[in-house]
Amino acid sequence: MDPPKICIVGFGALGTIYSFILEKAGAQVTAVCRSNYQTMQEHGVDIQSQKFGVYLGWRPHRVVDSVDSAALAEDSYDYIVCTFKCLPDIQTTPQVLGPLLARSRSFVLIQNGIGIELDLQHAVPSAVVMSGCAWIDATVVDQGRTLRHGPLERLVLGVHSPLGAPPKAPHSSEAHAALTAFVDLLKGGGGTPEQAMDIAAARWKKIIWNAGFSTFATLGDATLPDICHEPARSFTMPVVRGFMEEVVSVARALGLDEPDLPMASIDEAIDLTLSEYGVAGPPYKPSMLVDFLAERPMEIEVIIGGVLRYAASKQVSTPRLSTAYALLRMHQSRFIQKSKKA
Amino acid sequence: MDPPKICIVGFGALGTIYSFILEKAGAQVTAVCRSNYQTMQEHGVDIQSQKFGVYLGWRPHRVVDSVDSAALAEDSYDYIVCTFKCLPDIQTTPQVLGPLLARSRSFVLIQNGIGIELDLQHAVPSAVVMSGCAWIDATVVDQGRTLRHGPLERLVLGVHSPLGAPPKAPHSSEAHAALTAFVDLLKGGGGTPEQAMDIAAARWKKIIWNAGFSTFATLGDATLPDICHEPARSFTMPVVRGFMEEVVSVARALGLDEPDLPMASIDEAIDLTLSEYGVAGPPYKPSMLVDFLAERPMEIEVIIGGVLRYAASKQVSTPRLSTAYALLRMHQSRFIQKSKKA
Repeated sequence: MDPPKICIVGFGALGTIYSFILEKAGAQVTAVCRSNYQTMQEHGVDIQSQKFGVYLGWRPHRVVDSVDSAALAEDSYDYIVCTFKCLPDIQTTPQVLGPLLARSRSFVLIQNGIGIELDLQHAVPSAVVMSGCAWIDATVVDQGRTLRHGPLERLVLGVHSPLGAPPKAPHSSEAHAALTAFVDLLKGGGGTPEQAMDIAAARWKKIIWNAGFSTFATLGDATLPDICHEPARSFTMPVVRGFMEEVVSVARALGLDEPDLPMASIDEAIDLTLSEYGVAGPPYKPSMLVDFLAERPMEIEVIIGGVLRYAASKQVSTPRLSTAYALLRMHQSRFIQKSKKA
Repeated sequence: MDPPKICIVGFGALGTIYSFILEKAGAQVTAVCRSNYQTMQEHGVDIQSQKFGVYLGWRPHRVVDSVDSAALAEDSYDYIVCTFKCLPDIQTTPQVLGPLLARSRSFVLIQNGIGIELDLQHAVPSAVVMSGCAWIDATVVDQGRTLRHGPLERLVLGVHSPLGAPPKAPHSSEAHAALTAFVDLLKGGGGTPEQAMDIAAARWKKIIWNAGFSTFATLGDATLPDICHEPARSFTMPVVRGFMEEVVSVARALGLDEPDLPMASIDEAIDLTLSEYGVAGPPYKPSMLVDFLAERPMEIEVIIGGVLRYAASKQVSTPRLSTAYALLRMHQSRFIQKSKKA
């Protein structure tokens, strides 16, 4: 059997880890490196992972500098995996993928956000679109030369129902096979994938945390300990919880009920975070705040905008999230202008 | 008749203008200069006012460096006028005034905010407390040496009902006399005072603008044109209006009805601002944003905190303002820490 061919678009921390796992499983990975092509060509990446070990100057099977080169390199890929930052207010996923849209029938989105699959499903209605929520503590340092990774790596994966299908319709046999094969590959490479019965519910669970903590941290220019310590906790937590409750009320209007997305997810998210950062804990900054401080475009469209578009379509009131979103968009306009000048 | 003796605490733009007007009317002003005592002693202030003219090296009757010196200088003042920034989360007004509390029966607060009179009324229950909303385009530049003032100066003045009195109770004859005499003084000095029938309503009218625009500008790090221009206007105005509507709903719960505070005040505030900044207009920054950018404590307690304390006491829901307030407090904690280190 030929090795599976996989194209990974976006070679940051997530792209590197999953390229590594998939190659270890025997796949041939073509990595589209956008800003870090030169570094990868000359140096590769030093992987320093508590889970996977140390690999100096590691490179996947093939490194290319653009989606065009990746589309020229192969007639077809078994999977196209998206690990780039999702910024539809700058470029939609179909715009990023360009000619790669015609090079596969299976797309895997390992990205933050709600509704991130919709653009792609509109562009390639017959393809299988699956997505994953990654729980991973990895960062790229040293100008892209080194990947630091702790002990944690977990990827909750599932297939998105096709556009127009009822939310809990059974998946096609093609979709099922594509998901199972991808999960098996990750397992074979030492990864820790989990098949989600309902990927939408899994994504909403993750957005609860982001909408609450990432939003507050960013607009308050605050690390998690800043938010979670006393005495700040007494005035921050009601707002964090308010953001989260609005997320759940939108999900409810979309048909995710208590078994899909328990109200207790809010307490869980808050309690876990308070237990990690409430007394001591490192000065962790959510990635939205990291982008904010660097004045780089933030993933606000997929993290909050996606929730609010569903809220508007179902006429759910979201005064807190709408306030935060408008303020974030005000900053985002500046960051987008700046990124266009750069 | 002896000239009226007036002590002005806080000698920024407002303190300077009103010292000047009151001295022109024949009063003897003792100015408490806190950070700018040295400058005032050595140089005075160059007043460059479109309304009042140019006066180089101007000084009031007496300049002192502290409230203690002001309290030693006179046994009693006809009025004590507060023109300092109102930061009760650092120091309450009675704490700022200290020994001056016993030096007058009439206090005039020319400051932003809602509920700013309460601390003082608790500290000196038998005194007359009046306050003014200043509409004025003045700034101090050149390290406190120069006051720039445009053509605008209007001060809406009124007496606050004593603690525990019904909101629209008639004022005592002492209060009435104190207000009238102060208004006459300002007129005599070329100022433009207006007696408000209901100072509370006048203050709520001003807080509508601040709660809407100052809050959004500060948390969005945006000038008024940034907020008012297309295309931003389409996503900023609903939130600005939402802040304002919450302010009005709190005022309603306190008994200010449509004739006191017309709902149309919101449209007026928005339309006026859009007409000034919607197409062109200078890159104006509200003072809260100026403080924010300089990482100095902001007047959030009196501008938003005051509204929210009334909201809590009347159980009015304020999801947008509460969100903004918590985010501002997060920043404020940093600024207060910084100001204590300085």
